[in-house]
Amino acid sequence: MRHFIEELEQLKAKLLEQSSLVESQIYRSITAVVQKDEALAHEVLRSEARINQMEIEIDDFAVSLLALQQPMAADLRFIIASIKINNDLERMGDLAVSIAQRAISLLSEPIVKPMIDIPHISALVQSMVRKSLDSFVTRDADLARSVLSSDDAVDSLRNASFHELISFMEQDPKNIRQSVDLLAVVRNLERIADHATNIAEDVLFLAKGIDVRHHAEAR
Amino acid sequence: MRHFIEELEQLKAKLLEQSSLVESQIYRSITAVVQKDEALAHEVLRSEARINQMEIEIDDFAVSLLALQQPMAADLRFIIASIKINNDLERMGDLAVSIAQRAISLLSEPIVKPMIDIPHISALVQSMVRKSLDSFVTRDADLARSVLSSDDAVDSLRNASFHELISFMEQDPKNIRQSVDLLAVVRNLERIADHATNIAEDVLFLAKGIDVRHHAEAR
Repeated sequence: MRHFIEELEQLKAKLLEQSSLVESQIYRSITAVVQKDEALAHEVLRSEARINQMEIEIDDFAVSLLALQQPMAADLRFIIASIKINNDLERMGDLAVSIAQRAISLLSEPIVKPMIDIPHISALVQSMVRKSLDSFVTRDADLARSVLSSDDAVDSLRNASFHELISFMEQDPKNIRQSVDLLAVVRNLERIADHATNIAEDVLFLAKGIDVRHHAEAR
Repeated sequence: MRHFIEELEQLKAKLLEQSSLVESQIYRSITAVVQKDEALAHEVLRSEARINQMEIEIDDFAVSLLALQQPMAADLRFIIASIKINNDLERMGDLAVSIAQRAISLLSEPIVKPMIDIPHISALVQSMVRKSLDSFVTRDADLARSVLSSDDAVDSLRNASFHELISFMEQDPKNIRQSVDLLAVVRNLERIADHATNIAEDVLFLAKGIDVRHHAEAR
C-alpha cells in the first residue's frame, strides 16, 4: 500500500514535469511571436518530441497503475483525472508548436503594428494554465473555479482582437497575411485556455468525489 | 462475468449513439454554411446540450465499470480507450457548434464566391470520422491506419484553401469578413480531422495490446 501511494506521487510528479515543459513551450512560442525571435521558435519545434514522448510514458504508467493496483474510489478518480490532464497538456504543447510556426511565418512580415493584445491575452492564458495545474496539485476547488471564471475574460479579449485585426486588414491589403497569422495566434491561445478549463473541470470532478456506485445503480 | 460483457457492449452502444449525434452535427453545420441555412445552424446550437449530457453519462458509466469490475488487460484498455474517444467526440461536437456560429455570421455576407473547397474538405473529414468510429467498433487496425494516412490530404486541402482565401481578401477588402469566417470553418474541419486521428490512434493502442505489466517492470 505504501508502494502504491509512492506510485501515485510519482504519477503526480511526472504530470508536473510535463506541465513545466508545456508552460515553457507556451511562454517561448509567444515570446518568439512578440520579439520576432526565430531561434526561440525553432527551440519550440525541437522540444515537441520530448512532450509527445512524456505523454506516452505518463499514459502507460497510469494505465499500468489501474491494471496492477485495481484502485478504488478516490485513487481511481485521481488516475482517471491524470490520464485526462495528460491529454490536455499534450494538446497545449501542440498549440504552442502552432504558435511557433506562426512566429516563423511572421518573421517575413514588417512590424506595422505594436502587438499590444497578444501579450495581454497570453499573460491571462498562462496564468489560467498555472492555476489549473496548481489546483490539481493542491486539490483546491476554489482555485479551479477561478480558472473557469477567467474564460469569459479570454473570450472578450479574443473578440476585441478579432475586431481590431479585421479593421487592420480592411485598411490595407498589405496587412492581410500578417493579420491572418495573428488571428491564428489568438485562436491558439484561446484553445490553450479551453484546455486549462478542462483541467479545472477535472479537478472539480476529483474534488466532488462522485459516488460511482450510485451511478451504477441509477442505470 | 456475462453481466460485465453486457456492460462493455452497453458502453460501446452509448459511444456509437454519441458518434451518430456528433456526425449529424458536423453534417448539419457544414450544410448550414454551404446552403446558408439559418434554421439548420440553430438546430446545431440547440443539440449541443444533449451531446454534453451524453459525454458525462458515458464518462460516469466508464468510471463505474473501472471501479466495480476491476477489469484486467484487454477490457481495461477498452474502457480507457472509450473514455478518450468520448472526450474526442464531445470536442468534435463543440467544433460543429463553432462551424454553425460561422454559418450564422456568414448569412449577412453576400455569396461572392462558390464555396468549392469546403464541401470537398468536409467530405474527406466526415469520412475520416466515420472510419475512425468503424475501426473502433470492428477493432480494425488497417482501417484505423487509413484514417492516419488521410491526415496529409486534409493538410494539403487546408493549405490550398488558405492561399485561395488570402488572395480573395487581397483582391477586395469587402471579402475580408467573409473570408475570415471561411478560414475559421476550414480550421475547425481540420481540428475535427485531428480528433478522428486521435480516435484512430486509440484504436491502434487497443489493437496493439500493450502489456501493461511489462511497462510496470520497465520503470
